[in-house]
Amino acid sequence: MNTSQIKTLLERVAAGHLDTATAERQLVEALRERPFEDLGFARVDHHRALRQGFPEVVLGLGKTPAQVAAISREIVARGSTLLVTRAAPDAYEAVKTVVPGASYLPVPRLITLQQQDVARGHGQLLVVAAGTSDLPVAEEAACTAELMGNEVERLYDVGVAGLHRLLTERRRLHAARVIIVVAGMEGALPSVVSGLVSVPVIAVPTSIGYGASFGGIAALLGMLNSCASGVSVVNIDNGFGAANIASLINHL
Amino acid sequence: MNTSQIKTLLERVAAGHLDTATAERQLVEALRERPFEDLGFARVDHHRALRQGFPEVVLGLGKTPAQVAAISREIVARGSTLLVTRAAPDAYEAVKTVVPGASYLPVPRLITLQQQDVARGHGQLLVVAAGTSDLPVAEEAACTAELMGNEVERLYDVGVAGLHRLLTERRRLHAARVIIVVAGMEGALPSVVSGLVSVPVIAVPTSIGYGASFGGIAALLGMLNSCASGVSVVNIDNGFGAANIASLINHL
Amino acid sequence: MNTSQIKTLLERVAAGHLDTATAERQLVEALRERPFEDLGFARVDHHRALRQGFPEVVLGLGKTPAQVAAISREIVARGSTLLVTRAAPDAYEAVKTVVPGASYLPVPRLITLQQQDVARGHGQLLVVAAGTSDLPVAEEAACTAELMGNEVERLYDVGVAGLHRLLTERRRLHAARVIIVVAGMEGALPSVVSGLVSVPVIAVPTSIGYGASFGGIAALLGMLNSCASGVSVVNIDNGFGAANIASLINHL
Amino acid sequence: MNTSQIKTLLERVAAGHLDTATAERQLVEALRERPFEDLGFARVDHHRALRQGFPEVVLGLGKTPAQVAAISREIVARGSTLLVTRAAPDAYEAVKTVVPGASYLPVPRLITLQQQDVARGHGQLLVVAAGTSDLPVAEEAACTAELMGNEVERLYDVGVAGLHRLLTERRRLHAARVIIVVAGMEGALPSVVSGLVSVPVIAVPTSIGYGASFGGIAALLGMLNSCASGVSVVNIDNGFGAANIASLINHL
Amino acid sequence: MNTSQIKTLLERVAAGHLDTATAERQLVEALRERPFEDLGFARVDHHRALRQGFPEVVLGLGKTPAQVAAISREIVARGSTLLVTRAAPDAYEAVKTVVPGASYLPVPRLITLQQQDVARGHGQLLVVAAGTSDLPVAEEAACTAELMGNEVERLYDVGVAGLHRLLTERRRLHAARVIIVVAGMEGALPSVVSGLVSVPVIAVPTSIGYGASFGGIAALLGMLNSCASGVSVVNIDNGFGAANIASLINHL
Amino acid sequence: MNTSQIKTLLERVAAGHLDTATAERQLVEALRERPFEDLGFARVDHHRALRQGFPEVVLGLGKTPAQVAAISREIVARGSTLLVTRAAPDAYEAVKTVVPGASYLPVPRLITLQQQDVARGHGQLLVVAAGTSDLPVAEEAACTAELMGNEVERLYDVGVAGLHRLLTERRRLHAARVIIVVAGMEGALPSVVSGLVSVPVIAVPTSIGYGASFGGIAALLGMLNSCASGVSVVNIDNGFGAANIASLINHL
Amino acid sequence: MNTSQIKTLLERVAAGHLDTATAERQLVEALRERPFEDLGFARVDHHRALRQGFPEVVLGLGKTPAQVAAISREIVARGSTLLVTRAAPDAYEAVKTVVPGASYLPVPRLITLQQQDVARGHGQLLVVAAGTSDLPVAEEAACTAELMGNEVERLYDVGVAGLHRLLTERRRLHAARVIIVVAGMEGALPSVVSGLVSVPVIAVPTSIGYGASFGGIAALLGMLNSCASGVSVVNIDNGFGAANIASLINHL
Amino acid sequence: MNTSQIKTLLERVAAGHLDTATAERQLVEALRERPFEDLGFARVDHHRALRQGFPEVVLGLGKTPAQVAAISREIVARGSTLLVTRAAPDAYEAVKTVVPGASYLPVPRLITLQQQDVARGHGQLLVVAAGTSDLPVAEEAACTAELMGNEVERLYDVGVAGLHRLLTERRRLHAARVIIVVAGMEGALPSVVSGLVSVPVIAVPTSIGYGASFGGIAALLGMLNSCASGVSVVNIDNGFGAANIASLINHL
Repeated sequence: MNTSQIKTLLERVAAGHLDTATAERQLVEALRERPFEDLGFARVDHHRALRQGFPEVVLGLGKTPAQVAAISREIVARGSTLLVTRAAPDAYEAVKTVVPGASYLPVPRLITLQQQDVARGHGQLLVVAAGTSDLPVAEEAACTAELMGNEVERLYDVGVAGLHRLLTERRRLHAARVIIVVAGMEGALPSVVSGLVSVPVIAVPTSIGYGASFGGIAALLGMLNSCASGVSVVNIDNGFGAANIASLINHL
Repeated sequence: MNTSQIKTLLERVAAGHLDTATAERQLVEALRERPFEDLGFARVDHHRALRQGFPEVVLGLGKTPAQVAAISREIVARGSTLLVTRAAPDAYEAVKTVVPGASYLPVPRLITLQQQDVARGHGQLLVVAAGTSDLPVAEEAACTAELMGNEVERLYDVGVAGLHRLLTERRRLHAARVIIVVAGMEGALPSVVSGLVSVPVIAVPTSIGYGASFGGIAALLGMLNSCASGVSVVNIDNGFGAANIASLINHL
Repeated sequence: MNTSQIKTLLERVAAGHLDTATAERQLVEALRERPFEDLGFARVDHHRALRQGFPEVVLGLGKTPAQVAAISREIVARGSTLLVTRAAPDAYEAVKTVVPGASYLPVPRLITLQQQDVARGHGQLLVVAAGTSDLPVAEEAACTAELMGNEVERLYDVGVAGLHRLLTERRRLHAARVIIVVAGMEGALPSVVSGLVSVPVIAVPTSIGYGASFGGIAALLGMLNSCASGVSVVNIDNGFGAANIASLINHL
Repeated sequence: MNTSQIKTLLERVAAGHLDTATAERQLVEALRERPFEDLGFARVDHHRALRQGFPEVVLGLGKTPAQVAAISREIVARGSTLLVTRAAPDAYEAVKTVVPGASYLPVPRLITLQQQDVARGHGQLLVVAAGTSDLPVAEEAACTAELMGNEVERLYDVGVAGLHRLLTERRRLHAARVIIVVAGMEGALPSVVSGLVSVPVIAVPTSIGYGASFGGIAALLGMLNSCASGVSVVNIDNGFGAANIASLINHL
Repeated sequence: MNTSQIKTLLERVAAGHLDTATAERQLVEALRERPFEDLGFARVDHHRALRQGFPEVVLGLGKTPAQVAAISREIVARGSTLLVTRAAPDAYEAVKTVVPGASYLPVPRLITLQQQDVARGHGQLLVVAAGTSDLPVAEEAACTAELMGNEVERLYDVGVAGLHRLLTERRRLHAARVIIVVAGMEGALPSVVSGLVSVPVIAVPTSIGYGASFGGIAALLGMLNSCASGVSVVNIDNGFGAANIASLINHL
Repeated sequence: MNTSQIKTLLERVAAGHLDTATAERQLVEALRERPFEDLGFARVDHHRALRQGFPEVVLGLGKTPAQVAAISREIVARGSTLLVTRAAPDAYEAVKTVVPGASYLPVPRLITLQQQDVARGHGQLLVVAAGTSDLPVAEEAACTAELMGNEVERLYDVGVAGLHRLLTERRRLHAARVIIVVAGMEGALPSVVSGLVSVPVIAVPTSIGYGASFGGIAALLGMLNSCASGVSVVNIDNGFGAANIASLINHL
Repeated sequence: MNTSQIKTLLERVAAGHLDTATAERQLVEALRERPFEDLGFARVDHHRALRQGFPEVVLGLGKTPAQVAAISREIVARGSTLLVTRAAPDAYEAVKTVVPGASYLPVPRLITLQQQDVARGHGQLLVVAAGTSDLPVAEEAACTAELMGNEVERLYDVGVAGLHRLLTERRRLHAARVIIVVAGMEGALPSVVSGLVSVPVIAVPTSIGYGASFGGIAALLGMLNSCASGVSVVNIDNGFGAANIASLINHL
Repeated sequence: MNTSQIKTLLERVAAGHLDTATAERQLVEALRERPFEDLGFARVDHHRALRQGFPEVVLGLGKTPAQVAAISREIVARGSTLLVTRAAPDAYEAVKTVVPGASYLPVPRLITLQQQDVARGHGQLLVVAAGTSDLPVAEEAACTAELMGNEVERLYDVGVAGLHRLLTERRRLHAARVIIVVAGMEGALPSVVSGLVSVPVIAVPTSIGYGASFGGIAALLGMLNSCASGVSVVNIDNGFGAANIASLINHL
């Protein structure tokens, strides 16, 4: 039983559409359910939406298609929104057999099934990307944020070596309540963006680059050492994490 | 002319205490001022409070006492709140000669002078520290956040190896609108805290530790790889940055 | 001649089932055998079970199937239990042709053949894993420990971001005589587990993660810097080593 | 109330020296005490001996002398054995003023006060050190282990470049129930020792060396990659941690 | 005999002020001189100005004051301009005793004595610095470039977090023939500057920063991974090297 | 409208072949064009040749063939020279369908189409390579530089372990106005070359090597620490960047 | 003309089998030959055997089969012994078409053709390998050393965790004039071997291992920090280099 | 009893100056002596000269003056040559009180006392240093080699950026039987030297440099990746180790 289900139940009681005895029984049953389901190889957390505002998200990396499918079935069966990140196409094939309604987004490699349990964020969430190659990570962030109930704007290919491309978009920067900035190579874009706005900036280094980019270390260090003081950082290529944090902020 | 000065001016006009001609002249003069003052070695940014909600903060590291003092005088002369971070005692000596009202907090090594230009945050900001040795960084965060207009709570010495110390404080964790978690060594506390709440967690790795802590790298990596998805990270020992971001969030 | 063969011989002498002359001749012959067999590319150590309590274990990594098979035949021919770690399926194919009774466990990639030469450990050995993706390493540890004569319990998917999943299993934690904790990403689980028990914890970092996990370095550093003082660490993904150490402890 | 105090109380009840009403009252009061004492900057854990077999140990690193002294007074006041590691002489000066009976060991930099709450380990604990320069770490391990109730043997300056020095001491190696091996530079000694015995070896890399020893990284990596499978590792220079683990094993 | 001495000699011959026999003898003698002077601990290179356009420069780091003084005397005695970098005050004291006319610049820590052997560069050389703390390195570059015959402009404290400070100086950026950009922390300034101009940019990372700046590594990596393709990089804090390269370019 | 188109227009006006009204209209229209074209996933920069002397170059790495083709069409349609670096053969297949005249150079993996908009450099640009394995990077540099309007000489397989191969080519070294030196392994060649000439040297470390070359880090560090002061460095394998910088210098 | 050809010529002159005029002409012609042959992509060094005692060796890594074949033909045509290291099978296929007599050793991946130009070393060269997985590198060393004229002994699978395997071979260790020790993982074997002998030990770290072996870094650091002072080190997996150095020593 | 003492005894027997009974008794007594002396904190190895050709050398680093003095007294008492490396002046003060004849070399920081037990090497040993700052390490090598019985030549300040300084000394390079090359910064000198000679080159990286030299890592990597195949490497700043290896070679 998630937050919106609880809310509905209470509203129906208040409206006289549900008698208190039935409501009580339903609530007690819900509380009797184990907060997680032990599948042996995984413990699916059914109270996460209550504790943290969004159901458990499945990290596809390192799980077999069969494991992903079994966990997905568990989540959907409880009425929760499904989100699997870093999902390979064969994981999606396996999920489809048990969750026929699930969709697959190939660029950000997400498996999703929207259900009615997610609250709306208060403002606009802007995803900025430095280059075309950063799109898979930027889209992981943007699509995750949308699924979590946020209005999302995108501003792509505005790297710092061509500042005018960014500066002409100042109005959109100022319209956002929270900004995710995705960049590889030297990772300088979050500093520049943060200097132009007064809202929190979540920086996502990407593994885009070669040589001394060291798989994203250069961008990560650039962002951690940002001379702009409104920038916090997540792991390399972690578009999902950035979206989750931005969504938490946007729901405050 | 900062946000509160503009507000005051407009209120005085609205109340008939100030004629529009004078108000216009004052506004035009303010706009004529350069947005920054070039001291040769530094460009003091006088419009930062307008753009970013808080006046320019001085990073004491790598500046001579004379440089810190000159910049501080510039900032205070414009009516802005003064905050110098990583300030050695001799920098404070130099600042006192030109800003007699400035205070010095020795544990977080901050020089401060509060003026009337900072708005209040909306909720409670909680600073959690893993161990006693993390206090200087935790206090840098807590005192900065207070200066930036936030109500700050402190919860110290609740490292993960003695979980009961943290779990008995769950009520305080749930009362916060945004949480800063400061930890050295393995840096595991933010993951545990984030799993217990549904608000954003800003993680600050500290350089506390020895051997394979590598001056905070172990804690930094632990936080970047957090299995809890509500954690974003700032630079090692960057209590100030964490406070600034948390304050931005708390002012949304 | 391994420990249990020596024991049997002496018991038969004591029981009068074997005359001392024959027993003497058998012992002398056993001592005359070279302590290792030189295959040219490998020296199979036949006295290891005597010196260290378990026969030589074959690390499959970097050996050709033919080499693995030749070493396996040598080991089995002397009546020793066979254990090949990090064995690819083609290595198993080669072993089967010379050791028909050998089994293959695909998840932990082990080739095994149990023989009667392993003593029982004194207590319960618990293997804890943070996430589903850590299973191959956790199973390498669990299966190795079982083969080495230990009663093994498993507790999987109890990462620190959902503490309640671990805390509801406290009874099982307290029942163990020695605990192996397997975790990737930030590697914080061993600190939390060690804080809850008073037995030694062997921590195994895994290469699970991405970006700044650097193939397990983040987890390794997290474990080495554990603020809980009962944690010692083995190499990344070294489930076998952890099991061997835990078994040594459990046989004390 | 620690384990030995509980034991004494129960024995006095059994022997009729203490009436059950008084005993009950004393036990209830003990349970009413908070499991930790909040000093503001530190939470002293008074139930740790119950949970983990030894009272809380104070890591001196990063704490002011005044903080060390305040924590030490708390610990001693509850009847617990005191152990402060990495204690500078001025910390000892501060402790002496509030715990007059405390001793200082300058080589391992330990402040100690033995009280009657520690159980004896079952066998001999051997501390092996590769070189003379490793003595401070080796002595931190040896003195800690003694304080924790273990019979400790020492075997120093037996580096692998002069194997005969080690091989002539085989009898002492075989007499130990658990072995701590302390080594800097290439850190090869634990592999060699572990190959000679059948008990667990706890390896402690030290920061001794220069150039490419990188403050102990070379030794740490050497130990983590040990080809001997009975070696687990603790942080660089962490003699205390090794002793704690070895003591846990020796008390099983 | 350096380039300007050769030029003078030839002009005097052409003007009839010097007979060819004398000129020939002087040239032969000059060629007879060893191209370097062996001081035992150093070989002073007297033909470097001929080969490379500027006399040998002395790196003060790692040399004793006596060594610096002896080399300086050698250089000045041949009529060459003296430049000692990374010179401590005591090195200057020693040099003054043998080269009384030498000057000391304390901020960039340079010892200098200008002589008449340096050609003028063709255009303006601009030194840009991100922050006040980068001044010692920026001044090492600027003063070196001046000594090498270049007209030098300075533009300091224009970090990327306050872009307007840089953008208002576009005219000065466009006036330069070659630009040196000095920055610590995330090192993003060279990318931004290079995107605004069409001349070569020499980037100098500085060791300014803390935590994950790792003594300048973050800035160095940022610069090497610059998405602007006109940026080449020198060693951390190597203001001298940047000036030398910029001067070579400016003399083409 | 690029530089050469503007020049042609003005010359036609001066020669009376174009009336000023038409010229004015054409110029106004050109200025009305957006300085970049937003393709959604990329913003193609059409004024780059004006700002930086060469049209925007496409980094093929991390872009899909369809993205590379769409950007290439945009660039060619405006009359600009096309250069795609790190282009896989399938990217070339896609480009050919929309830009039939494009060529592919398989060794340096470049897609090119020369148009009439590039000015000639002033002198000779020399590309030096240490070994045969460095050729792909050296050719990326050489072909890029040629496309950018430079006369390019090549000098390959002259590594420092066989100095005579380099020393016999001194004349060619002295003939160059700017030198690119490409080397892997220890990366010592730029230091040696720079010591022999008085022009700027751009060093390109390559990822050629094995073991402790760490994918080019050894060469990169060698070049950054060059004892020759005329060497600046670009990213590992960045032949394109070196060519761009060398071309900027050669056009001064 | 290599050393043995020169020796033959002189002996024939001394024996009266060759007149001095012919001999002179042959020598002059040989000197007239260029010391290297420029193939465009490679400069084959024909005087290397004269300068360094062995003809130029071809590193196969990073060269195309066609390049390897062309260089091989050049070398063999001058009567020199051919050695190609790190040669893939397709490189051998290409070489065979132009050098039909060439052989291929698949384990060390060497292409060879022995000719009569190599002098014999003075003593025995011993190659020691720690484990079976180190064989490819050990064989690269052993086969190279044989080709360079040395008598080579092999001693394999004598890792430090089973010391008795090494100690029983002491006689063979003492018989060697120079020893190559090949080891991965912790790389401790060279220290142990060097402590047992009084001849130089060349240590070769291998990339064998996993996790914190970091592709051979652990072994490399172990060897560089050897507490035995007779150990020098070559690059990871550089069996060829070790053999070359050992051969140089053995020919002194 | 060292090698020369044994030789003397046998010669006296052969010459009839010593009766066989006395000689036998002396030899038996010598064999009865323990091969090392256990000082508690150190085991002084008295048979090392027999096993390895030179008595045990004391690494001063990490030992107290009292420890250095006690070990030195032990060594000298047995008639062995004393060598203490990395000795601070206060260690020398302590040694002088127990070994009055000991000398101190301040540049390489060595304490020495020559006794009559060292054999002469066969050829010339050359120590080459790249720069003046490398002298302390170069002198540690040169003085150690002299003490070990070698004729030592020195060639200093011949870095690769001024090749002519090295090339004019080719005759001295060719005269050496073994060469030690000491260099910091990019560490390129060993490659160049090795390319010019046909004897083994021992490379010593030094910690001289700044920024990206990373305390000698750049030089170390440069040397390990040398494209010249006659170079083996020792630890950073390990002049002693290089001398010991070179001396072993020179005594073959």
